[in-house]
Amino acid sequence: MDDVRTRLASIVGDGNFLAGAEIPEDYGRDEDLTGRPQLPAYVAKPGSAKEVAELLTTAAEHGVPVTARGSGTGISGAARPVAGGLVVSFERMNAVLEIDTGNHVAVVQPGVTVAELDARAAEHGLTYPVRPGELSGSLGGNVATNAGGMRAVKYGVTRDNVLGLEAALPTGEVIRTGGKVAKSSSGYDLTQLIIGSEGTLALVTEVIVKLRPRLPHGATVLAPFGDFGQVMAAVPEIVASGVGPHILEYIDAATMAAIVDREGLDLGVPAEIRAACDAYLVVALESRDDRRLAEDVETTGELLSGLGATEVYVLDGGAARRLIEAREKAFWVVKAVGCDDTIDAVVPRTEMPRFIAAAQELARAAGGDALGCGHAGDGNVHLAIRCPDPAIRKKLFTEILAYAVELGGQISGEHGLGRAKTGYFTELADPARIALMRRIKHAFDPTGILNPGVLFP
Amino acid sequence: MDDVRTRLASIVGDGNFLAGAEIPEDYGRDEDLTGRPQLPAYVAKPGSAKEVAELLTTAAEHGVPVTARGSGTGISGAARPVAGGLVVSFERMNAVLEIDTGNHVAVVQPGVTVAELDARAAEHGLTYPVRPGELSGSLGGNVATNAGGMRAVKYGVTRDNVLGLEAALPTGEVIRTGGKVAKSSSGYDLTQLIIGSEGTLALVTEVIVKLRPRLPHGATVLAPFGDFGQVMAAVPEIVASGVGPHILEYIDAATMAAIVDREGLDLGVPAEIRAACDAYLVVALESRDDRRLAEDVETTGELLSGLGATEVYVLDGGAARRLIEAREKAFWVVKAVGCDDTIDAVVPRTEMPRFIAAAQELARAAGGDALGCGHAGDGNVHLAIRCPDPAIRKKLFTEILAYAVELGGQISGEHGLGRAKTGYFTELADPARIALMRRIKHAFDPTGILNPGVLFP
Repeated sequence: MDDVRTRLASIVGDGNFLAGAEIPEDYGRDEDLTGRPQLPAYVAKPGSAKEVAELLTTAAEHGVPVTARGSGTGISGAARPVAGGLVVSFERMNAVLEIDTGNHVAVVQPGVTVAELDARAAEHGLTYPVRPGELSGSLGGNVATNAGGMRAVKYGVTRDNVLGLEAALPTGEVIRTGGKVAKSSSGYDLTQLIIGSEGTLALVTEVIVKLRPRLPHGATVLAPFGDFGQVMAAVPEIVASGVGPHILEYIDAATMAAIVDREGLDLGVPAEIRAACDAYLVVALESRDDRRLAEDVETTGELLSGLGATEVYVLDGGAARRLIEAREKAFWVVKAVGCDDTIDAVVPRTEMPRFIAAAQELARAAGGDALGCGHAGDGNVHLAIRCPDPAIRKKLFTEILAYAVELGGQISGEHGLGRAKTGYFTELADPARIALMRRIKHAFDPTGILNPGVLFP
Repeated sequence: MDDVRTRLASIVGDGNFLAGAEIPEDYGRDEDLTGRPQLPAYVAKPGSAKEVAELLTTAAEHGVPVTARGSGTGISGAARPVAGGLVVSFERMNAVLEIDTGNHVAVVQPGVTVAELDARAAEHGLTYPVRPGELSGSLGGNVATNAGGMRAVKYGVTRDNVLGLEAALPTGEVIRTGGKVAKSSSGYDLTQLIIGSEGTLALVTEVIVKLRPRLPHGATVLAPFGDFGQVMAAVPEIVASGVGPHILEYIDAATMAAIVDREGLDLGVPAEIRAACDAYLVVALESRDDRRLAEDVETTGELLSGLGATEVYVLDGGAARRLIEAREKAFWVVKAVGCDDTIDAVVPRTEMPRFIAAAQELARAAGGDALGCGHAGDGNVHLAIRCPDPAIRKKLFTEILAYAVELGGQISGEHGLGRAKTGYFTELADPARIALMRRIKHAFDPTGILNPGVLFP
């Protein structure tokens, strides 16, 4: 053991290495609600891809399990290490290497946060449009979980915005995939295979992302509805209208009440409308042209009224910003009100009402409840589940997620499986698909050191 | 051998099976310019995923190499079988299974053509926006090569428009990947791994694609430039302007002359402007709103004039359609004028002038020439190379493609490697990446029956 420790420390230098009791508690967890923290045996903070590769070959040689860590903001436990393991923390590899305005591309190290990348892009009138709830999340972590967020309805998820990677393989090679190119048909798409693999295939050491023009004008429309089914029926109409919202979210009445209360928000919705409201639709629009934006807001408002909205509110800039920020923090709101775990299933958009109704009924039958909000344009449902008993909750989650799969959906839309949801995946996914995934895992990681317990139990 | 033949025939039925001398010549080739036709030993036309899986297990058992075939319109030889092999032709699996207007999704069998899918989507005001040059290409073939085309600058390539697959594995299982869902973080993205794998991992038996609103108003702007560098400098400006073209193509003066001549097109460009023109930029715009389209055309025209265009022509609908159609047929034009092989490299957009200049210089130095057009918004360069001597041409292609790789590009942007370009890939790509691809191939296809010689020599 002393030999491993010495070798690992020598790769990154003593000042960038921690072992045993020196390791702060934070390295033992991410923001997953369900798992117990587990400190690793070692934490290494590499400064280069070469160091990452050396850490991996040393770990493979000694059978030390390796868990990558960005900002630790994941909520599925994929950054929670295993006992005796090594955490590779990318906190030092946090440079924006290039903002390439000719190609509309940025090259970043994995420790760069979403907030920083977007701020740097903004200096050139560009944006990195992916908005996971947590802007302090790292790009490396976003790649590992294929992070999504509210703007996916227009800009897609991480997967749709990454053009290339540099990654260290557990077998010691550093490879490059993709590049500053918009497309390629030159062999298997290793970029897409590594994205969403939750640290089980390779450790990402550099990320090339697309940037987009930053649109100067924006507006947010809030529409309360008396019936959730109407909210969902409105969604394909708004998409088909061509106004092209970059945010299209539903928030159920209870969640909205909790958000408004916690943030002290006044959205200008009178009490009697709030009382008769089942769910809200939030539609955010943006444009390079102020007049077009005003037209699109009007079109959207007319559409929503025609589709049964009780009222249509155009929020002023401050209220809109605060509502979106509060919605992004919905996870913390539900955590504060005593949520025990969260659903992040994705279903075909049209199946959302059926799925949510069934989930709520199942939760009530189990003696709990299910509140939520979600990405209405994407079919991605976030439900905060209250159900304190772990055994009952496990059964409840299995039933809810089985129904998502039955409807043609998937267990996780954007949070990843991590340690929190892998068990459900193993139980509910097609065994032939899991077996194929295992063979792919073996092709990358023959000694099985990368994040054991995640994706595969 | 008789045993294999009997077993394969019994899977699909005698009426859907051909062997030996019964096999028409077409099954021995696709539209690749360089390779010699090679008839297979057997052709099977399955009617279901189950039959495809049975064909694969039988082939694996007897070591019979298998090549999938859609419409046979590929131009890299990926559908050219090997001697003694089995062609699995998807001509009978050609049904549009569903146009789902609520989810903006279509479900199709692999033998459906791009033209038919788009026509069916059009009945609902929707479009399948991928436009590979050949609209009679099949969706299965488009998935296998990750087909691109002119609209990729706005809508992406096949990869960006496929949400899920059903596929038969060489090990006999039929798996489903993805679904009618916009996103997923639930294990490895097998959809994206299979897309672009050119029939070497699995045979696709069903494809779920995104559909988009069909925009009713369109206009095409043609701008001749005296200098190719100006054309390329204009591209990021147009992208950044936000007018959002769905076509952004360059056509060099010689290629334009050949197209215009062959198609008998009158684009209204006077002879003296044609004579002084080095290359043309074609910018096509679309909108749901006629007035906005007119504004965008004006913005684009002003931008192009300011960026050095000699003149700006707004083509009338008929001329525009014919020019785009002729551009789509550019492959046939260059074939007719005696092109020996084509370059389909993709480089970072800003590197296009440097890459094209170098390729032309290398071609001239080899006693040949290089003419072309390409997807300026994507950095995807199509060059028709005249260089009849195979040995000299091989050296020339190696030099040109090596330079693309040196510039951060890839060997194929959208045609695939097939049998035509695999040798260059093997020579020029990172051996660690190729070795990893081989291990992934083995995870899918342990007996190596799927399209041997493609991607791996």
